[in-house]
Formats: sequence, C-alpha cells, structure tokens
Amino acid sequence: VHMSDVSLASMELGPFSHFMQKEIHEQPRALTDTIEALIDDASFSPALFGEGAEEVFAEVESVLILAAGTSYYAGLTAKYWLESIAQVPTSVEIASEYRYRRSVPNPKQLIVTISQSGETLDTMEALKHAKTLGHTLTLAICNVQESAIPRASRLILYTRAGAEIGVASTKAFTTQLVALFTLAVTLAKQHGRLVDGQEQDYLDALRHLPGSVQYALNLEPQIREWATFFANKQHALFLGRGIHYPIALEGALKLKEISYIHAEAYPAGELKHGPLALVDRDMPVVVIAPNDVLLEKVKSNMQEVKARGGELFVFADADSHFTESEGVHVIRTPRHVGVLSPILHTIPVQLLAYHAALLKGTDVDKPRNLAKSVTVE
Amino acid sequence: VHMSDVSLASMELGPFSHFMQKEIHEQPRALTDTIEALIDDASFSPALFGEGAEEVFAEVESVLILAAGTSYYAGLTAKYWLESIAQVPTSVEIASEYRYRRSVPNPKQLIVTISQSGETLDTMEALKHAKTLGHTLTLAICNVQESAIPRASRLILYTRAGAEIGVASTKAFTTQLVALFTLAVTLAKQHGRLVDGQEQDYLDALRHLPGSVQYALNLEPQIREWATFFANKQHALFLGRGIHYPIALEGALKLKEISYIHAEAYPAGELKHGPLALVDRDMPVVVIAPNDVLLEKVKSNMQEVKARGGELFVFADADSHFTESEGVHVIRTPRHVGVLSPILHTIPVQLLAYHAALLKGTDVDKPRNLAKSVTVE
Repeated sequence: VHMSDVSLASMELGPFSHFMQKEIHEQPRALTDTIEALIDDASFSPALFGEGAEEVFAEVESVLILAAGTSYYAGLTAKYWLESIAQVPTSVEIASEYRYRRSVPNPKQLIVTISQSGETLDTMEALKHAKTLGHTLTLAICNVQESAIPRASRLILYTRAGAEIGVASTKAFTTQLVALFTLAVTLAKQHGRLVDGQEQDYLDALRHLPGSVQYALNLEPQIREWATFFANKQHALFLGRGIHYPIALEGALKLKEISYIHAEAYPAGELKHGPLALVDRDMPVVVIAPNDVLLEKVKSNMQEVKARGGELFVFADADSHFTESEGVHVIRTPRHVGVLSPILHTIPVQLLAYHAALLKGTDVDKPRNLAKSVTVE
Repeated sequence: VHMSDVSLASMELGPFSHFMQKEIHEQPRALTDTIEALIDDASFSPALFGEGAEEVFAEVESVLILAAGTSYYAGLTAKYWLESIAQVPTSVEIASEYRYRRSVPNPKQLIVTISQSGETLDTMEALKHAKTLGHTLTLAICNVQESAIPRASRLILYTRAGAEIGVASTKAFTTQLVALFTLAVTLAKQHGRLVDGQEQDYLDALRHLPGSVQYALNLEPQIREWATFFANKQHALFLGRGIHYPIALEGALKLKEISYIHAEAYPAGELKHGPLALVDRDMPVVVIAPNDVLLEKVKSNMQEVKARGGELFVFADADSHFTESEGVHVIRTPRHVGVLSPILHTIPVQLLAYHAALLKGTDVDKPRNLAKSVTVE
C-alpha cells in the first residue's frame, strides 16, 4: 500500500471489527466512485482509458489478460464479457506462468494487466515479457495511482476503491470487475457491436449496481448463520457455471485465505468427473449459479451423496424457483442484474468467508503467511 | 466401456491387485502400441489422422480443445506443445462450459475433442455446439473405436491403450498425451516450423519413452513409502509450473478420485497468492517441476511454513541438484526426456494415489459416486 493513498480517516475502523469487514461494506461507495466518470459522461468513451485509447482500441483483434490471485479471477470473469459483448477473443493467463513459457504473440492483441497495488512482481514481469515479444498495445487496471505497472503501460484505467488494507482483496476485486466490464462495452461500441439502446441499458445496469450491492450486504445476518456450519469444517466445494465460475473460485480463495478452510472451486459440470467422490458431511457444497436448470442438475448429481450427509448451500436469485429441502439450503440474492450478476454474487461469498474466519478466530486482516502485495517471486 | 473391446484376457488381473495397478503398469505397452504406426513410418504424417488430414491441417490457424476431467488435463498439456512446437495459438475449454456460453467462433480453428470412451456426453454436446457455430475442422482423440465422438468427427486419432477398466483413468491419459504430441509435431512439420533434424529428435524421444516410463514404474517402492505419509492426511497441495502444471492437476485429481483425500493443484507461482495460508503439518505439498530454479523458489516460499510443520515432497529429475533436507523429501525421476517430461511425471503421481488408496482401503477400481464414462449431465 502506498501510504500517500491512505488518509488517516480511511485507516479508522469506525463501527467495524476488521478492515476486511469495513472494505466489504464500502463496496457501494467504491463502485459508485469507480463508475462516476462513466455515468457523468453518460457514455462508454475510450477517453476513460487515457490519451490515444481510441487508436489503440481500433487496432485490437484479441485480448490477453495477465494477472495473479484474485485479480486473475477478475480476468476470468472479463473473458465472458469481452467475448459475448465485444466479440473479441480473449485469453486469460496467470502472470507467473506466462512469463516463463513460449507463447505465440500477436501484435494486434491488447495486453491487459490487473493488479490492485500496481506493483505485483509477477504481473510486472509478465508485462515486460509481453513487450519483449513485440506487444505494444497495453492497458493497466490498477487501484494505486502512479504505481509501477500503470507507469509501464500505454493505457490506464484506475479503479477508485480507495486504500485497501485487508490482505484478502474485496472492494479492489469488485471495482476491477466494473473496470473490465467498461472495457468490454467500450470495445463493443467502438467495433460497432452494440445494438440500439444497448449502451443505455448497460449504463442503467451500472447505475443500479451500488443499490443492488447494498441489498446483498443486507443478507449478512443470514450468511452469518450459514457461517456457523462452515466454521467447524475443514473442506468446502464451490460450484459455478459460466460467468459465475470465477466467482466460485473467488469465494473458495477467500475462505482459504482468511479462515484456513480448504475450499476448492469447480465448474459445476465437472463435479461428476472427480470431486463428487470427496463429498460427504464434512464437505459442504456451495453453488453460485442463479439458474434453475443448472441448480436442478447439481441437485440430481448430489442425490447419491445425500446418504453420506452431503449438504448444498445455494445462492439463487430472486427469480429462481429453486426451493429449500432436506440438505438443501437457499439464500436468495437480489433480483438479477443481468450481465453484472457476477459482481453482485461476490458479496455473499466475501461475507461467508469473513464470518467463518470470525468464528474460527483467525487474524482476518493479516492471515498467516500472506502479504498484501506480492512483490517477491 | 464397449464390451466388444474387452477380451477375456484383458479382464484378468494377473499378478495385480486392481485394474488400476495393472493399467498403470501396462503403460509402456500402451504407449508402444500408440506410437507404433508413427515409428514404423519414421515420420509425422497427416495420414495418421485419417483421409483429408493434410487439407484440414493446411487450413488450421488455431486450435480449440474440448474435453472433461482427466482428458481436459491432457488438453491443457497439449497447449504447451501446440504453442511452442507448432506455434499455433491454442485454447482449452471444459466441454460443459463451452457448450453453454457465447464464444467467438473462427472457422479456421481446429476443434479437438478428447474422450477415452468417445461417449462423454458433455464433450459430444460441445462438439455439436461447435458445429452449429460453423466449425467444420474437427478431430477426435479417443480410445474406443467407432464410438459416438469419432463418428461425428472429420479426423480421428485413436489411442491404443486397450480397454481401461479402472474408473480413474491412467493409460488412457498418457496415450492421449502421445496422440496430442503427435498432433503438435505433425502441424509444426506441415507448417514448416521444424528445423533440420528436429523430426528425428522427436521420433527418438518417442522411441525412448516406453523405456523411461518403465524406469519410472520401478520407483514404486519409494513411492509406496511416501504414500504412508499421505494416507492419514485429509489434504494435499500439488504444485507444478508450465507444462508440468497440468500433471499437478492430474495428480491431485487421482488422489481425490480414489483415496478421497482433498488434493488441489496450483501453478507454483500462485502459492503465495493464497494457498500458502493453508499449509501446515496436515497439508503436505507435492512439487512436480523438474527445474532447480523453481524448486528453490518454492522452497523459499515454504520457509515460513516450516515452523508449522509443512512438508515438501519433490519429484526432481536425475539432472537436478536439489537435495533432501529437513522437511524436504526428494524422489529422482529418470533423466529428463525433454518435451515428453509431462508424460513421464504422470507415472509417480498415479502410483502415489494408488498406494494412498490401498492404505486407506477404498474401492480403488470403483470409487464412490463416480462412473467410468460420464454419459449423463
């Protein structure tokens, strides 16, 4: 964390027990700040990404996202937006992997790096590696102004999360998602891939997002209840499908990082290709996939596990008809916000990890062995 | 399993306790059979892939691999070969994800499906989905002749693993890897990307492979010793980097499937972005990455975990200078076989899972809740 960004005020916990809890609750504000310029403009404009962005975007044929940890999961989410909205083929790669392997560079590919601190060593090195391969179209999405990665990039979009103190990233992640969504729509618009009225629809969705996130935060008492079930477990499985699979990954990572529960995420369809063998009363299964058809499939996969005490914890949206039954717990998330649904579904998994960690009594803001920004290999 | 492929002879266990053990030990033979046509020919020829392959390969600009479970990990390994040897950009996607999302099709992309049975429902549906998007360049890599997926594909390369009875795939996986390597070199040759003598070098590497695999099988007593350490654990972490990362994934999956130990794989560089918080005496860390520099980095990441009893189990190759120390166990794999190293490193992780399961007394050949070929959603 650059101390220049950390005002004394933001260091204060106020009514919260931990910075992580405070930062989770700051998300409506952080998201509002991040979309402010966009909303004021009432338009997805390349200018948001800095000078010369229009020329860069005109050249872009495909996107390669490079990141680590939570930022990598933001990248995985963005792939769905970039391919479905902008119709730009997108790859997402772990920075520490990309920098050491032989890849096939395409100079018309936009290299997008994502890093809260802007100083993540592997991501910085991956960016340098891309440049040595001849890549010149580069965009940094970072939260800390004037940090190393933005300084080395042609275009920049800063998230306005404010200083993030908790080691486990929360508001940095959701604001990264908003920045990446903005990139997808801006590219789509410039490449003529939006139909009439779609830009306004996306702006409206963003306008409603902070309110919907606030609604999701209000689920805290129900989620605290669920946390009591997880706190005495050593394992958990998180399932998602499509654009919600990266959110399952993020939910599992949060639980790992701060509650030391070994949580792992899988795309829901892979359950029967292996992990189903693990499920019993000691491994609860969380499903983040507000889609009734998928939920029914997962439920049917789980039928055989019922006898061994396997339990399902489902985040279903308000429109879902999926109901509670024996061994199946349901929390309803706010009415779906369409393409922004992954942002909304991040909130409950953050809260679940936080309350499980509280119950376990771990050092929530400084989990063992982890550093806030990873500036070593 | 198609009973037509299962001769009475192959159903016999001989000196082995389980089909899985038998199939692990059959790999030198299965690999020899799979490469036989190639070796007889002394050339990587498109004809191996069926009629019209040369015309199809001439059109190919990129590759998209679709598969599930273990076959998906074979695809992830192939990406490294296809990008480094053939210089063809490659994506690998889980079949059940691809079929439900909106992607950006490129008709010059070769769609490669991988399925032991040739009947995996999600993979079949993904192939159908690709065709509806306009894809016509399709290749199936399967083990069961005349099954549904090859019948629906333009090109076919059959693996010659013979009938695989154990639910946890072993010889099907390593022969899939050989088939995918063959694809990479054949594409490279046709696109003029091999330097003088390289084709012969690759043929030599394949010729030596069954012998090196036999050498790896002879490590069984040492690995059985390690298994005693894993059998009473509930967790394990598998780390790899680059082309060995998919082998870490496969090692973790095998342990999950048959020993019900919650093993999870990470690219080694991601350790410090989260999973390091989980490591203590209850979560041994396996490293599959025959590279001294990487091993030293992982060891230094682990230093802080030493105090909590974290232990490292390393597969290092014969050329490695990495040595045993307190909390660091090393097994040396055969002298490295260059680009085929991932195939070789699969053997010890299969054996580790098998012996851990034996010690736990699980039903090795029919693990709970899993089916041999997944023909439902």
